[in-house]
Formats: sequence, structure tokens, C-alpha cells
Amino acid sequence: MSLTFFTPGPAQLYPTFEKHLQTFVSEQLGSISHRSQQYRDLHKFTVDQLRTLLNVPDSHAILFLGSASEAWERILFSCVELESFHLVNGSFSKKFYDYSLGLCKYAHSQEKPMGEGFSASEVIVPEYAELICTTHNETSSGVQMPVSEIHKLKQKYPDKLIAVDIVSSAPYPDLDFNLIDTAFFSVQKAFGLPAGLGVWIVNEKCLKKSEEIKKQYSIGAHNDLPTLWKNAQNNETPATPNVMGIYLLGKIAEDFNKIGVKNIRKETEQKADLLYKFIESANGFSSFVKDKKYRSQTVIVANTEQPSADIIKTMKTKGMVIGSGYGQFKSSQLRIANFPATSLEEIQSLIQELKAL
Amino acid sequence: MSLTFFTPGPAQLYPTFEKHLQTFVSEQLGSISHRSQQYRDLHKFTVDQLRTLLNVPDSHAILFLGSASEAWERILFSCVELESFHLVNGSFSKKFYDYSLGLCKYAHSQEKPMGEGFSASEVIVPEYAELICTTHNETSSGVQMPVSEIHKLKQKYPDKLIAVDIVSSAPYPDLDFNLIDTAFFSVQKAFGLPAGLGVWIVNEKCLKKSEEIKKQYSIGAHNDLPTLWKNAQNNETPATPNVMGIYLLGKIAEDFNKIGVKNIRKETEQKADLLYKFIESANGFSSFVKDKKYRSQTVIVANTEQPSADIIKTMKTKGMVIGSGYGQFKSSQLRIANFPATSLEEIQSLIQELKAL
Repeated sequence: MSLTFFTPGPAQLYPTFEKHLQTFVSEQLGSISHRSQQYRDLHKFTVDQLRTLLNVPDSHAILFLGSASEAWERILFSCVELESFHLVNGSFSKKFYDYSLGLCKYAHSQEKPMGEGFSASEVIVPEYAELICTTHNETSSGVQMPVSEIHKLKQKYPDKLIAVDIVSSAPYPDLDFNLIDTAFFSVQKAFGLPAGLGVWIVNEKCLKKSEEIKKQYSIGAHNDLPTLWKNAQNNETPATPNVMGIYLLGKIAEDFNKIGVKNIRKETEQKADLLYKFIESANGFSSFVKDKKYRSQTVIVANTEQPSADIIKTMKTKGMVIGSGYGQFKSSQLRIANFPATSLEEIQSLIQELKAL
Repeated sequence: MSLTFFTPGPAQLYPTFEKHLQTFVSEQLGSISHRSQQYRDLHKFTVDQLRTLLNVPDSHAILFLGSASEAWERILFSCVELESFHLVNGSFSKKFYDYSLGLCKYAHSQEKPMGEGFSASEVIVPEYAELICTTHNETSSGVQMPVSEIHKLKQKYPDKLIAVDIVSSAPYPDLDFNLIDTAFFSVQKAFGLPAGLGVWIVNEKCLKKSEEIKKQYSIGAHNDLPTLWKNAQNNETPATPNVMGIYLLGKIAEDFNKIGVKNIRKETEQKADLLYKFIESANGFSSFVKDKKYRSQTVIVANTEQPSADIIKTMKTKGMVIGSGYGQFKSSQLRIANFPATSLEEIQSLIQELKAL
């Protein structure tokens, strides 16, 4: 039986994935040199499609890494000489903070319990923090920091750099890259691709900062920002990249552009609305995130009265795979991904089956 | 026209690649959770097949990274508190050295011109160097350091850790992992897969060293050895891995094991022998590596009298893709990969066409 994955990543593959994969194979793109014009054209195509999709100005480079987790490290290496600041309200924002400690930086944090969100007005960034690390979508808890609050936070601290984790939400958040210095995501979430590729969007201010830091401290040796940036000017990467992942991402981004990012965002909100309405009204379910303002549109987290493992098991027999809760909430919550790869009809079917439990 | 790639990587894909890719797609493995038993079984299968293929004892973990270049960095972070030592005779061994400088370590080197190799007896490792970095196969120059010399070097300095770059030769070198502390490769060379995955083989001594270093210095935050090691015990990875790459690598390694690694090594030597005999005897070609002892069995580098770009162009019209020289030798050399994906018959056809030029 073919399954439909409503899991928060790896997730359902986008419907056009197989077609693009076949083209990749038949054109023998897995064998082309990463120093050839053919590769540079492929690379540029993906960058251009992402630039259009996410409205990224030329002040920012779009770079490729092995994963979004690698981006955490590269951003901290590049943008933090001594002190970083982190908004922590779940497992992934906590990992960003932990990475800073792992690089022996002084990491400040402002914390909230899982399920709660941050508004710009309540955030106090310490004076010497060089970088504000935010998470647009906490995959562990289903909390979203509204884009308007992220923008306000940068406007409140215009002299600090700001990083936005959009791993499990891009291309949903409409970030203003005139304000946002750096953001990053991975492809196995809303882009509906197999894992193994991270995308790092980063501006010239971060580049300059990394060049300053490099005079005194290590900024890493692998995929360090100045080297990545220099190679990207030529549509190349320093090491042999995941050519298959970059190709597929470009084709999916092109598909998204054909639909129009506004339409994708609108459908995401429609589907999320259906899911939240169901969770709020159905017996045995409730929304983990109480404040509607902070509810994620892409990863919906529900408290369950019965053990979530039982629901997951039953739903799998119906061909639908849902994610469990994260960490301490593993057995008492469900996480339902709401990515472009699952259609309005599939979300409606999911709700029908959950109702029939 | 379907092309045959004799390029040193990305290279010809292994003949069974498409079959395995289809299975990956039809079994929906691109969507499975990396925290599920299904993933752990897949992960374990690949590790077990590699363990058999490369004769890796249980003292060593087999870990997955984004690329072999990432392994350079992780090895230096994990095994070098202050000083590393590098045998440098080409662009890739030089990059390993540069990575050490990039991490602000004190990097020593012993250098030879491109095209020349090292014997253990002539190598002098400085007293305080903690790690000896060797390159089994210099992809840039076609120089191989015989496995026996690598083993002798470790025996000469038993108290130092030794790392072996087997990027463009594994599974050809029959390393004795009772001597070798760490080695690494990428999948787009002799394993005939698309790029995007690095494999890091590393022993408990390196793990212990990284834990010691961590008390005083950063050992990195992303894919740091203690975290990778801990996750590997459970057949998992800290971040979402390249599941497709890991799956395909396991299936190719299984194919190799069915053939038998000894047979693969023997056929590699037969094919290399044909290529070198041709280069040595044909007008207009000569072997770049003069000393037979140091000639690579997997990347054969030939000096050409006519511009190598002309030869490459003509050969492409015949459906055969050969690599250019590296760096300063780009226009005066050819690099011909001799990986398992190209059969004896294909190498014979290549030679026939080169003869007919």
C-alpha cells in the first residue's frame, strides 16, 4: 500500500519528485563534473528559482550545505566573534544555542516553555550579543514566531545581525530580506525532497563579519563563508556538492513558482485552518499551542487523550502516516505536517479518518 | 547518446544504481523517519556491508557526513589539540593541510612535487605532531601511497594517530584497521553514486582524544565525534542524514561483496595495467608518475603532447568522457578514472579509441 506521509520531515515527497528524478538519471547528471559549465548552469538555475520564490535580493548569496544543522554551525562561526543570543522555546532552538556553546562562544538565551511563542516587545537582547538567533517554526512544538515579530525584533536592534531558522516552514514565511541577514532551511520538509541538502541564505554583512572574525579566530575550515561565497559567485561550491539534491530542489522551486508562492501560502493557511478547527472541536484532541498568534501553519501539534502511538498505528492501516510528539511529549501528542506535497483533498481525507477513530 | 564517464568524480554511476534507486522510490524510503526502526535497519545494513567490504573491526565506527571534505575538518577537530602533520604532494593533501590552518592548529608538512610519492622511511614526523595525515590516492596527480608504506609509517610512529584519505580509491586499498586510526571516502568516486555523502571510519582512540580535547578546546558543534559516535551506537545520526545516499551505498557495497573485494581489486589492477601499458607505449602520451611504485590504480594521469582539451572533445563525440588535468596541468594532462563502474571491456574500448586518435 502506498502511504501518504503527514510527518514533519522526512515528509511526503512532492508529486513531481519522481518525474524530476527520472530526468536527472536519463540526462546522466549524477556523473557530470562539478567544475563544468553544465553544472554551473544547473546550480544557477536552482539559485535563480529560489531567489524568485523567496524574494531574495542580490545582497544575499544562496549557498548549499549538507544539512540545515550544518548551517547553525556555519552561521555561528561566521557571525559571532564572542557572544550570541538565542530565543529558545523548543528542542531545535535549543540545539542552535547548544551549537554556540559547542564552538566555545558565550551564548545568551531567553527561554519559554514548549508551546509558547515570543513577541518582539518582550525580547531583551544583551548589549554585547552580536547575533540574534530566532526560529520561525519550532518543529518540536508547533510554535511559529510571526514574521512581523521577527521583523520588529530586527528593527528594535538594527545594529545586530539576525538569523532565522525556516527549516520546517520555507517557503511559507514571507521574510523581508532587507531586514533579515541570514536564514536557512533543509529540503526534506516543505520542499518534499529526500534529506541530504541544506540551503543557507546569507548577506554581505555576514560575509564582512566573518572576514573580520577570521583575523583573530577560526571561522571553520569546511564550507567557511568566505570560501563558499567566492565559489558561489561562479555558481560552484568548494567541495563536490549534492548535485542531485541541488537539481531536484531547483525543479521543485520552479514548480512552486509556476503555482505562485502566494497561492502556496494561501493553501497552506486553508489547510492549517481545517486542521486546527478539527483539533479544537474533536473529542480527544486539543491544540498544544494555546495562543492562536503563535500556531504554526506548517507543523500542527495536537495533544491527544489516548496514547498517540495508538492513533498513529490505526492511521497507518489507513495509509496515512502522522508524526509522534517530540521528546517528553512523544506519547501524548501528534505532529501533523502541512506541507505543499499534501493537497487540500489529502488533508480533508486525513481529518475524515481522524474523525472516524 | 549515452556517455561513459571515465572521470575521477563525479564518475560513471555503478550499473546497479538505477535498480536500487527505483527500489528506494517504490518503497517510499525518502519519507521514512530517521528515528524509526525502519531507518535504523537501513543504516545498520549499510554499516554492516561496509564493515565486511573494507574489513573494519568493531573498534572503529562507520559514520556518515555530508562529504569527505567535511571529514578533513571533523578529523582535525577530533584528533588534534595543537599540532598536525601532513604529507603534501598534490591539491587534495594540501587542502587537508589548509583545513588544519583554518582551524588555527599548528600544521606541519613534508612536501613533494606533484607526481611524486612518499615512502615511510623518508618521512620525519615532528615530535609534537599528534596526527599524521596521509593521502592514499592523490586525485589531482594520480600518485598513490602504497598501503604497505602507510602501515610502515604508523609502525614507525605507533604513538601518533594516523588518518588516511581514501576518497578516490576505496574499496581498492586493503588497509589494516588494527593500524589505521581513521580513514574516509566519498561515494561519487569508486562506489559509482551521485555525490552528497561522506563516510568516516574512526576508532575509539580518536573518540577518546576528542573527549580530552573537548575539555579545553572546541571540537566543533555539528557532527562532533562524541555525538556522532553515540548516535551511531543506535544506528542513527545526530541530524537528518542523506537517507537516499546511505541506502544506495549499502546496496552497492552489497553488490561489491557479492563479487568479492579481492576480485574487485584484481580487476582494478588488470584495468590499470592495460591503461598504463597503453600510455607508456602510445605516441603522444606518457605517464605523469614516473616511479611505478607510486602509480595510482584508480586515477591514471597521462601527460599529453597535444592539448588535452582536444582529446577530451574528440573522445566525447565517441561517447567517452575523460577528465582533464588538475590545476596547472589542466591542459597538458588527462585523468582517467579506473573505478568498478567501468568494466574491462569498457576500458579496452577506451584504449582502442585513444589509439585511433
